[in-house]
Amino acid sequence: MDVLIMMGSDSDLPVMEKATVLLKEMGVSYRMHISSAHRTPERTVELIREAEASGAKVIIAGAGGAAHLPGVIAAYTTLPVIGVPLTSWALDGMDALLSIAQMPPGIPVATVAINGAKNAALLAVAILAIGDSSLKGKLLEYREKMAMEVIEKDRRLERG
Amino acid sequence: MDVLIMMGSDSDLPVMEKATVLLKEMGVSYRMHISSAHRTPERTVELIREAEASGAKVIIAGAGGAAHLPGVIAAYTTLPVIGVPLTSWALDGMDALLSIAQMPPGIPVATVAINGAKNAALLAVAILAIGDSSLKGKLLEYREKMAMEVIEKDRRLERG
Amino acid sequence: MDVLIMMGSDSDLPVMEKATVLLKEMGVSYRMHISSAHRTPERTVELIREAEASGAKVIIAGAGGAAHLPGVIAAYTTLPVIGVPLTSWALDGMDALLSIAQMPPGIPVATVAINGAKNAALLAVAILAIGDSSLKGKLLEYREKMAMEVIEKDRRLERG
Amino acid sequence: MDVLIMMGSDSDLPVMEKATVLLKEMGVSYRMHISSAHRTPERTVELIREAEASGAKVIIAGAGGAAHLPGVIAAYTTLPVIGVPLTSWALDGMDALLSIAQMPPGIPVATVAINGAKNAALLAVAILAIGDSSLKGKLLEYREKMAMEVIEKDRRLERG
Amino acid sequence: MDVLIMMGSDSDLPVMEKATVLLKEMGVSYRMHISSAHRTPERTVELIREAEASGAKVIIAGAGGAAHLPGVIAAYTTLPVIGVPLTSWALDGMDALLSIAQMPPGIPVATVAINGAKNAALLAVAILAIGDSSLKGKLLEYREKMAMEVIEKDRRLERG
Amino acid sequence: MDVLIMMGSDSDLPVMEKATVLLKEMGVSYRMHISSAHRTPERTVELIREAEASGAKVIIAGAGGAAHLPGVIAAYTTLPVIGVPLTSWALDGMDALLSIAQMPPGIPVATVAINGAKNAALLAVAILAIGDSSLKGKLLEYREKMAMEVIEKDRRLERG
Amino acid sequence: MDVLIMMGSDSDLPVMEKATVLLKEMGVSYRMHISSAHRTPERTVELIREAEASGAKVIIAGAGGAAHLPGVIAAYTTLPVIGVPLTSWALDGMDALLSIAQMPPGIPVATVAINGAKNAALLAVAILAIGDSSLKGKLLEYREKMAMEVIEKDRRLERG
Amino acid sequence: MDVLIMMGSDSDLPVMEKATVLLKEMGVSYRMHISSAHRTPERTVELIREAEASGAKVIIAGAGGAAHLPGVIAAYTTLPVIGVPLTSWALDGMDALLSIAQMPPGIPVATVAINGAKNAALLAVAILAIGDSSLKGKLLEYREKMAMEVIEKDRRLERG
Repeated sequence: MDVLIMMGSDSDLPVMEKATVLLKEMGVSYRMHISSAHRTPERTVELIREAEASGAKVIIAGAGGAAHLPGVIAAYTTLPVIGVPLTSWALDGMDALLSIAQMPPGIPVATVAINGAKNAALLAVAILAIGDSSLKGKLLEYREKMAMEVIEKDRRLERG
Repeated sequence: MDVLIMMGSDSDLPVMEKATVLLKEMGVSYRMHISSAHRTPERTVELIREAEASGAKVIIAGAGGAAHLPGVIAAYTTLPVIGVPLTSWALDGMDALLSIAQMPPGIPVATVAINGAKNAALLAVAILAIGDSSLKGKLLEYREKMAMEVIEKDRRLERG
Repeated sequence: MDVLIMMGSDSDLPVMEKATVLLKEMGVSYRMHISSAHRTPERTVELIREAEASGAKVIIAGAGGAAHLPGVIAAYTTLPVIGVPLTSWALDGMDALLSIAQMPPGIPVATVAINGAKNAALLAVAILAIGDSSLKGKLLEYREKMAMEVIEKDRRLERG
Repeated sequence: MDVLIMMGSDSDLPVMEKATVLLKEMGVSYRMHISSAHRTPERTVELIREAEASGAKVIIAGAGGAAHLPGVIAAYTTLPVIGVPLTSWALDGMDALLSIAQMPPGIPVATVAINGAKNAALLAVAILAIGDSSLKGKLLEYREKMAMEVIEKDRRLERG
Repeated sequence: MDVLIMMGSDSDLPVMEKATVLLKEMGVSYRMHISSAHRTPERTVELIREAEASGAKVIIAGAGGAAHLPGVIAAYTTLPVIGVPLTSWALDGMDALLSIAQMPPGIPVATVAINGAKNAALLAVAILAIGDSSLKGKLLEYREKMAMEVIEKDRRLERG
Repeated sequence: MDVLIMMGSDSDLPVMEKATVLLKEMGVSYRMHISSAHRTPERTVELIREAEASGAKVIIAGAGGAAHLPGVIAAYTTLPVIGVPLTSWALDGMDALLSIAQMPPGIPVATVAINGAKNAALLAVAILAIGDSSLKGKLLEYREKMAMEVIEKDRRLERG
Repeated sequence: MDVLIMMGSDSDLPVMEKATVLLKEMGVSYRMHISSAHRTPERTVELIREAEASGAKVIIAGAGGAAHLPGVIAAYTTLPVIGVPLTSWALDGMDALLSIAQMPPGIPVATVAINGAKNAALLAVAILAIGDSSLKGKLLEYREKMAMEVIEKDRRLERG
Repeated sequence: MDVLIMMGSDSDLPVMEKATVLLKEMGVSYRMHISSAHRTPERTVELIREAEASGAKVIIAGAGGAAHLPGVIAAYTTLPVIGVPLTSWALDGMDALLSIAQMPPGIPVATVAINGAKNAALLAVAILAIGDSSLKGKLLEYREKMAMEVIEKDRRLERG
């Protein structure tokens, strides 16, 4: 398993699943778990230990509101942790963005956009691709495909 | 010991010491520790366990930036946790306020004002005073003294 | 009666009732009142006096917009006051959060998350549990049940 | 006495005194008091009652942080209340602005700019000038003088 | 005519009409106009001049977005101007609140809550009531009625 | 005269003068005036009329706080108006940015960065350069010079 | 072609088309393209070069979220670039507004209101009208028509 | 060379140098360049191409204000890009944080805290350590040293 995906609640699933779609497309193995930094703190630590033992190389964690999960995970591992701020019951994700991005000196979290689970997966792929030229190839193809889609849309616009 | 005071860094000390001044004034016993939710997560859990074993009844935790400390503590104890958002390197404490206040359903943190360490101590005293009429008396006296000071300032203003 | 729940308007009821559900579940007695800091200020003070006389130990107050109710209550009692910022007609609860959290030195309000009435009740229970080991037991059970639910959701996710 | 000026703390005096300078210039009588919505709530109500009895027509109240004072005063009087949000220990006055402006339906506060004590006084004068043509004259003169100063500065700029 | 109500667009009408409902209830005469600070600046000035000539004593102006209308009106009259920040196409009224409240020294606008047209009318009534004891009586009755409604709601809640 | 520069107060001069430095460097003629949207509204309109009569092609207006000046100018002219939001007594320029950028449909203001007077001048030059190839040449040179300075700094960094 | 309209995604089309409606009404020629600053950066540069070669005089670019498109375009051309911040998946357009307005010294973008595509077109017309008196005439007519519509609405309001 | 560090201006150097200190301490090779996304866009692209050719594995980019540099770099490379939002002339880094974090789907930037250059370096090290067990060892040591420092500070506090 290369990537561990974590979220605190099953209500985060609809957004976080965008990460799994991308990872599958790229042929990157992952495991996904629901575990809360606050409701199941010991279980969360356990899952990190297990993931490290299973060879996980990157961890993606999504969280809303106070959004401590990515930071708590980062405290227990030296693996790169990517945090996805999620919109929740108020403030449109601004609370989660600040809670995830503003980590103190010493323990970074790689923050992506609010609800940006797909970009979290792409960032994980970019990290894994450093030592994996075949994955790098897939990432380049993905970029090209995206570019093609933009250009295709532009053509359709021109044709009216 | 009745109150455990926690902070993640010695740079938080100048603000958090306002809590100790108030607790001393009220004759409430406390212990104060520096331990980080991110740099010393296991030690933080240990200190909570020790505090519970020593009969601590309330925990006060100050934190700036991502400010996870109060929430992380609350995850490991059912004691009431009071969180003090601290101003830090940017955003004037707004990041800490949101990170501490916006805790998810199930694990509350009692948030006070930005840099409000004194009010955290007063809240701890109010909680302890529920089962302690002598402490309640001291709290009432404190309130009266505060009121007197305001009235005295008003008089001085009138006299010019 | 252990807990007094206050709100300024019956439009706050749908959120604030989450507090009563939790208190009932925990077997904590409460009384709930609608009284406004601005439209019925004297009645609000009266209700606080009555609650204190009836042995209330904690007060929970929900308010939106300028959200003065928790602070006004705190001015008239030394009991711990828990404030619930409510979303209202604009700004997604940010106005209420700041109005409740940013209390001046001397008169704290224990602020919980925006619309966090359930957490307000849990905080009240945590406070009452300091002197009540049976209630503490219930709180620990509640925590365990929550943890179990998270773990159960995680298992369901794994089974797909 | 026409205008009552209130503030919660003597630290608000340097800003609030700008109101008195303007009122003196306009020959409007005023009284100024320090009384806190939270530390001296009963005294605050008393001062409002006294001011009403003494014929006060407008009340100006300055407050920072949670800034409840103007709203609390408005709850106890039907006189027009002008609120001045003050910058305090954090958030640059945004907390006070929201706490004062976002009053619930039924009890308005006339909010002016952050630290805008002078404008609060000018608004009070504008209100008093409705029934007082001599005061209206002074207000028109004041406006003209301001305009002249701007034009004079413009001329100095042109002359370089 | 005692009150002039202004707004920049007929899309502001649904909110601003709450002011007219209140003024009718209080028996206060008013005139309402649509005129934009930006699209019809000269007409706006004309309407202010006409209103002053017709004996208007207070002006209420609602505006969203950049929300210059209340400030522009205040520049052309010494009558008290009450500004109502309106929610519009983005930012939930925060833009209008800042644009109306943060007027520069010399030209105040009495800002009320976002979408607070009813409170604008109540503030206008409070201003007019200074010199009109019968109107003051109506305002006191209105307050009492509001209080009664709150108390009635509280009773209904108690009866369950 | 090609460019009219306006500001509401001489306290805006230190920032707004950066625009004049740039215009001089580019050989673009300008006139600069202090006139307030609120304190000298008629004079402001007069200056716009005069500028149009003198052949002004672009207007730059700086303002802080409620920052109505650029929008008020745009209401009286069809010339392109560039608005410079200025930091003032609170909120770090956010109030001015929103007040200038959020103009209603029909009357645009070209908003630049907070305190961005130099960029306002560069934008004016870019606009004037559309019909003036010599000015376009100067703008291209300016760009090149800027690029050279960046590259020079990079070289100095490399040499350590 | 006088105006190039750019946007990063076809999801921006419903807002950006308001610009084309206005330009058509004014008889201003334009070309519209979808090209992303991030997904098709080279294509974006190409389109700017083509537009310059085809005699484009103004560029309008709409973008949401990080909203780099207008600034990236401005880096490759000295033509005036008008940026339209778009609301997207979170934060109501505030992210795009700051990303577009806060350009560094040297490379300005003329920012209009959030979703203000129509005003972007009007600003482009105002810029083109500097050297085109017939276009200026159309702009004046447009202003007059807008004013008439406001006045007509006001009359309808008066007639009830 | 493993890491390329980029910034748009030499004024960003004092913050960004914290990244170099950390990388040196960890024995990670890096190159540092000043190149602006807006003033030297082609040079920026060139430097990315050169860095990729020289075997760079991670790019760190610091930027303030509109802060496009990290996103622009990410558009031209599939290497992981770490963005450091910098405080600049206004808004305390909030503008840069949003501009860097809110990247659109397809092109992620790994955002760290405002002014968090040291954490950017630590994140780069964590990424490089995935395929380098000796570097992982250094990272673990660094963590331990940090923990020891916290514990040492705690002891000093206890000893008073």
